[in-house]
Amino acid sequence: MSRPFVSLLSDFGARDPSAAILHGVILSIAPDAQIIDISHEVRKFAISDGALLLWCALPYLPVGAHVAVVDPGVGTNRRPIAMRVERGDILIGPDNGLLLAAADRLGGIVEARLLESAAHRLAVVSTSFHGRDIFAPAAAHLAAGTPLDRLGPTIEAAQLHRSPIPDAVIEPGCLRSSIIYVDTFGNIKLAGLRDDLETAVGPLAPGDGLALTLAGDQVYAIRWRGTFGDAEPGELLLYEDSYGRICLAMNQGDAAANLAAEEDADVTIRRG
Amino acid sequence: MSRPFVSLLSDFGARDPSAAILHGVILSIAPDAQIIDISHEVRKFAISDGALLLWCALPYLPVGAHVAVVDPGVGTNRRPIAMRVERGDILIGPDNGLLLAAADRLGGIVEARLLESAAHRLAVVSTSFHGRDIFAPAAAHLAAGTPLDRLGPTIEAAQLHRSPIPDAVIEPGCLRSSIIYVDTFGNIKLAGLRDDLETAVGPLAPGDGLALTLAGDQVYAIRWRGTFGDAEPGELLLYEDSYGRICLAMNQGDAAANLAAEEDADVTIRRG
Amino acid sequence: MSRPFVSLLSDFGARDPSAAILHGVILSIAPDAQIIDISHEVRKFAISDGALLLWCALPYLPVGAHVAVVDPGVGTNRRPIAMRVERGDILIGPDNGLLLAAADRLGGIVEARLLESAAHRLAVVSTSFHGRDIFAPAAAHLAAGTPLDRLGPTIEAAQLHRSPIPDAVIEPGCLRSSIIYVDTFGNIKLAGLRDDLETAVGPLAPGDGLALTLAGDQVYAIRWRGTFGDAEPGELLLYEDSYGRICLAMNQGDAAANLAAEEDADVTIRRG
Repeated sequence: MSRPFVSLLSDFGARDPSAAILHGVILSIAPDAQIIDISHEVRKFAISDGALLLWCALPYLPVGAHVAVVDPGVGTNRRPIAMRVERGDILIGPDNGLLLAAADRLGGIVEARLLESAAHRLAVVSTSFHGRDIFAPAAAHLAAGTPLDRLGPTIEAAQLHRSPIPDAVIEPGCLRSSIIYVDTFGNIKLAGLRDDLETAVGPLAPGDGLALTLAGDQVYAIRWRGTFGDAEPGELLLYEDSYGRICLAMNQGDAAANLAAEEDADVTIRRG
Repeated sequence: MSRPFVSLLSDFGARDPSAAILHGVILSIAPDAQIIDISHEVRKFAISDGALLLWCALPYLPVGAHVAVVDPGVGTNRRPIAMRVERGDILIGPDNGLLLAAADRLGGIVEARLLESAAHRLAVVSTSFHGRDIFAPAAAHLAAGTPLDRLGPTIEAAQLHRSPIPDAVIEPGCLRSSIIYVDTFGNIKLAGLRDDLETAVGPLAPGDGLALTLAGDQVYAIRWRGTFGDAEPGELLLYEDSYGRICLAMNQGDAAANLAAEEDADVTIRRG
Repeated sequence: MSRPFVSLLSDFGARDPSAAILHGVILSIAPDAQIIDISHEVRKFAISDGALLLWCALPYLPVGAHVAVVDPGVGTNRRPIAMRVERGDILIGPDNGLLLAAADRLGGIVEARLLESAAHRLAVVSTSFHGRDIFAPAAAHLAAGTPLDRLGPTIEAAQLHRSPIPDAVIEPGCLRSSIIYVDTFGNIKLAGLRDDLETAVGPLAPGDGLALTLAGDQVYAIRWRGTFGDAEPGELLLYEDSYGRICLAMNQGDAAANLAAEEDADVTIRRG
């Protein structure tokens, strides 16, 4: 029998003890659980960032129960949910869109439930730490084999809060995208996959010239590159990142700092 | 049989390899140990911060051996200690007050020992890394079942360095508190629990008005709130945090940054 | 049977999901593996920093497969390698010098191989994330018992990229050193061990006076200290750190910030 597997993602920060407390709660319920921390340094309250990190990470993690907590609405009437996806995983967190992109990437939602069962929460539920009191206990019980239908009533997928990650818009000869994440190297992740860009501007070969417009008025002549090593040091480049996503980077540099790029800024890409 | 359980807390920082070395030392002695990192990002030399994080975390962790190292006195004659508490855990670290608040919260000290046994240290003990050379080996041996009395002679609890966490002072109609920790969201943890405040100013209901004086001269009219969601965006509020402690926060904002609040500053709370 | 043991070091950063993805890939191949994160906060692209952290940490970790990824050359023709060392460990990463100091410290290289076996990589190898696609799978297979010779052809140790960590130069009465790492406390790690310094200036006793020249023109009169506690608060001191290395520190202060010290700066030490 394989060990129960749980992953954790939050904006709790590495300095505070909150993430460790999730580990403690899970091991108290499922002593055999194997736990991976995806990140606890998600930008505070940035649901979209958390959603992207889950989308990146979960395909490479074992099938299990995945808890995500970026939850500006804790203590309000936003709903705690768990959803089983096609691959067999269960995703657990607030109903604020955080889980949906990852759920899609794991094959889509098979069943979603509200986390209402008192027997699968801690005895006292606070108003400000549902990660500890609701989500971690649910994950531990589910990873250890409790059937999802014990956790609470069904909720229709159509009733869930929608994903905060924008899609790229494909137009003839132009991809309308936006900045969705800046990673710790300063690489800028854009809305849309390589396939989207090729649908808009045609097949891409290394060295192809592109015109990228950032925030409406900054225009950059850049090249599509197969790898960082094909670009000059300090050169801006567009490439397919290791998840299939289009990404704006600077070889041996920090693209986001150099461009003063901020999340949500508009980006359009054409041949150039 | 359950696996030996060890938790770790330090101010070593996530960039340096020190925390990983504690893991390595522990697994070399107790290969089956399960280890949780509470935090290695405690503010450098901030014994009081470390003490509070232990107080928060340990009640939610499995019974085990808990190592804490915030140790400005390493290499001096401050004593290395281990103490068994009523819940069954053993707390291990320097005798500088770091462990005491958590020990109280786990039922109080049953037995305390000096870590003097050479057989339960690494073969070479450095002057600057007792976490690796003394505390981690002790924790591994104790978690794996070595009786505490093998580690060294008894020390009376009364002879231990006292806790650095201040108590709140209850006066008629007024709680004299202070800032004891600012978390990564900018929420300000205060000395005293909700019970202390209610003893001072009477039973609190959501919406009750309070006058909070910070650092002697800044006066704020705020409300007692049951949850962040009851406050307006940007509103300062006082609430009971998820550990029962009184906490000053700003809904969807960073209270500490907005108030320029610093640890140890005086805070008084009255009806207002 | 002991569990497969794997350690990880990178400059991926704690915010991004890359480190967690290595965990996921490893556990998908070797579900029983025990994994220690040495650090994922190595300064971006700082091969020398990563090399020093490995040198510090690996002697204290169980024998196992150790993956290190500080890899400015990913996507170029730099080679992916694995090397077995005398102690029995296998070190895995890019051929850019990152692994060599640690390999020496574990007894030296016994056998080195290029990681060319497609069967021991992920099915798709990206140009920008070899940690996930090449190094982590190799480590998982090797930790789980796959013989090293299955991973690819031999490479001679003499053909490997050399270590970036400089040696100290011993002259009569003078050690020519340099700054190789600044830790999170601001302590400054220097090229050379205590033995090197004593070979240059003779046996050292606590309190001995030394003249330290930093960056060619800043001269400091400091003392050799056995422990931080022997120095005055705010005093600069030279001491043997817990790894045997010479280290410049400030008691209860941040030496690097106070001296505006930067990595690679020259340091010379004489009697003074």
